[in-house]
Amino acid sequence: MFQTPFMRPDRSAGQVFDWGVAQAVTADEAGFTEYWIGEHATLQWESIPSPELIIAAAARATKNIKLGPLAHLLPYHHPATLAVQTSWLSHILQGRYQLGIAAGAYPTDAALRGITDMSVNHKMLFEAIDIIEKVWAGKEYQAQGQFWNHGFPHEDPIHPVRPVTPFGGHIPMAMTGLSPNSPSIKFAGARGYMPVSVYSGDAFVMNHWEVYSEAAAANGHPADRSIHRVVRDCVIADTDAEAKRFAIEGGLGAAWEQYLAPTYKRFGVMEGLLADPSHSVDDVDAAYLAEHVWITGSPETVIQKLNDWQGHVGGFGTLLIYSYDYIDGSKQWEESMRRLAQEVAPKVSMPA
Amino acid sequence: MFQTPFMRPDRSAGQVFDWGVAQAVTADEAGFTEYWIGEHATLQWESIPSPELIIAAAARATKNIKLGPLAHLLPYHHPATLAVQTSWLSHILQGRYQLGIAAGAYPTDAALRGITDMSVNHKMLFEAIDIIEKVWAGKEYQAQGQFWNHGFPHEDPIHPVRPVTPFGGHIPMAMTGLSPNSPSIKFAGARGYMPVSVYSGDAFVMNHWEVYSEAAAANGHPADRSIHRVVRDCVIADTDAEAKRFAIEGGLGAAWEQYLAPTYKRFGVMEGLLADPSHSVDDVDAAYLAEHVWITGSPETVIQKLNDWQGHVGGFGTLLIYSYDYIDGSKQWEESMRRLAQEVAPKVSMPA
Repeated sequence: MFQTPFMRPDRSAGQVFDWGVAQAVTADEAGFTEYWIGEHATLQWESIPSPELIIAAAARATKNIKLGPLAHLLPYHHPATLAVQTSWLSHILQGRYQLGIAAGAYPTDAALRGITDMSVNHKMLFEAIDIIEKVWAGKEYQAQGQFWNHGFPHEDPIHPVRPVTPFGGHIPMAMTGLSPNSPSIKFAGARGYMPVSVYSGDAFVMNHWEVYSEAAAANGHPADRSIHRVVRDCVIADTDAEAKRFAIEGGLGAAWEQYLAPTYKRFGVMEGLLADPSHSVDDVDAAYLAEHVWITGSPETVIQKLNDWQGHVGGFGTLLIYSYDYIDGSKQWEESMRRLAQEVAPKVSMPA
Repeated sequence: MFQTPFMRPDRSAGQVFDWGVAQAVTADEAGFTEYWIGEHATLQWESIPSPELIIAAAARATKNIKLGPLAHLLPYHHPATLAVQTSWLSHILQGRYQLGIAAGAYPTDAALRGITDMSVNHKMLFEAIDIIEKVWAGKEYQAQGQFWNHGFPHEDPIHPVRPVTPFGGHIPMAMTGLSPNSPSIKFAGARGYMPVSVYSGDAFVMNHWEVYSEAAAANGHPADRSIHRVVRDCVIADTDAEAKRFAIEGGLGAAWEQYLAPTYKRFGVMEGLLADPSHSVDDVDAAYLAEHVWITGSPETVIQKLNDWQGHVGGFGTLLIYSYDYIDGSKQWEESMRRLAQEVAPKVSMPA
């Protein structure tokens, strides 16, 4: 699950926080394997500024599911401080922690940190990654970067330094991509991080894997398709008709109409969602998506659709579904989650 | 309670985290009014790098107690990011959040952020406070500081900005002081923040209030002694002898011998703890402290000692006790906490 969260702007901080933790618990109990949480300081509809707080609260309430930010926006944190916080969480979660990182794409989040020319964000991202990895290595040094100074302290006999190396020596890292030839997906390949494709059409999913596997090969990383995550909506009910109705009338449909449609248009990725080139982006509404883009239906229908899709794009390892605003009545949504994990997922596989 | 934490260095991150949350719950149930958590990235014996994670986990498990970092070390965070995180927590906790801030005193924490000359820390602290308050105000601006750029975004009609003003418009803030004429205590007075005296003798407690109230008066803030917090150890048992024994042989005594004695010597504040000027700092061991410095005894004895102390120093509003490492058997410690809150505190008051 990917909890961005897509919550109505009038929800309180407490509602968003409690829902974020509750969905982690539901996902864990249902058998989901991972739960990612977005980070945005200023967005109305993606209203978790500090995913680590939900991870901390969910750590004690979950057993098996992996938890992680998707993504910490590296330009907006001191990398050494973030290195220690993420390392600490990796130990608390004993291997159940994963770390998504990104450069930040929203101007309002950037403006809060005094960044008005966002071309600097990618440079900051790369410097931050290097700092985080250097701090995790735990060897004494001091350095002045372009954006941050950083180091690792000299051992002091009176106050020995606590190790900051992550659990198992390493934290699995992830990056998301949306656009074709995504530089983030390419970078993930070069570093061996998990690629996460935000779904905007099959062509982009296939393009992302191509970009990723080429970059991985060029840098000597194995590139097994099982590492590829794709985020796509999926709603299950007793019948196809009921699944469609619930998708359109529930939190998913509401978020689409009020928030996602304008956002997709803004990023210029609506065309990818068209089921047929003769369709127009003007026709793309919730009913269109429930038919052509969101994976909706009975368990049998969804199994069929997911296996067909796997075959079409060549295979990927993990489907991530978004969470939406169902806090006024979450039963049907939680049932859809359970059926996805328990009735559908065991019958879906990558093409041989 | 002040959870620094004083935990044995061999405790795992999970043990420290779970103990931090468990003590918040015990304190809440016992009737403690506030629970503060330290922040240190590199210290072996004060091993919580991110107090906000324990606060987040404790938020849902507690009902009445106020929670807060003591202190976020402002030079080590992007102030705008911290402003949003603290504001979010203030809303989640609906008025149960308090914010301690400090410049950072440990060279190893500083070195991690590339700071080798710590004279810069106070300048960073002051700039960070101004940035945090400016971001909380939520009015559009852009500024370049000496250490950080920052701003508040222009309203974007497609993505309206989520308000970042704290719950109730304001977060109560606190600063700690240890040394005589502490500049932090003076600054707290000038700003109207809560002063927290780390106990190193009655003379310093009285000096802190003098420094604080003068600075407050000079800046037009009311300075009622009830705002003054003092951190001092307190252990209660059925008898005076048993309280002393438990103080010496338990987590408190162990932390003193192994960690605090060298630290107090390092900061040059051992002399303040002497009960009589003819004593020598070489005589100060756990037995000496249990007799003269730690408030130990039966409930009746501790009530007497606390009221005498209140009278001697002129009065203060809140006693904070440290938490120590009792995770191998916490029952007697938790009972001491309960008796302090329920049997002792109601019978202790400031001098009329």
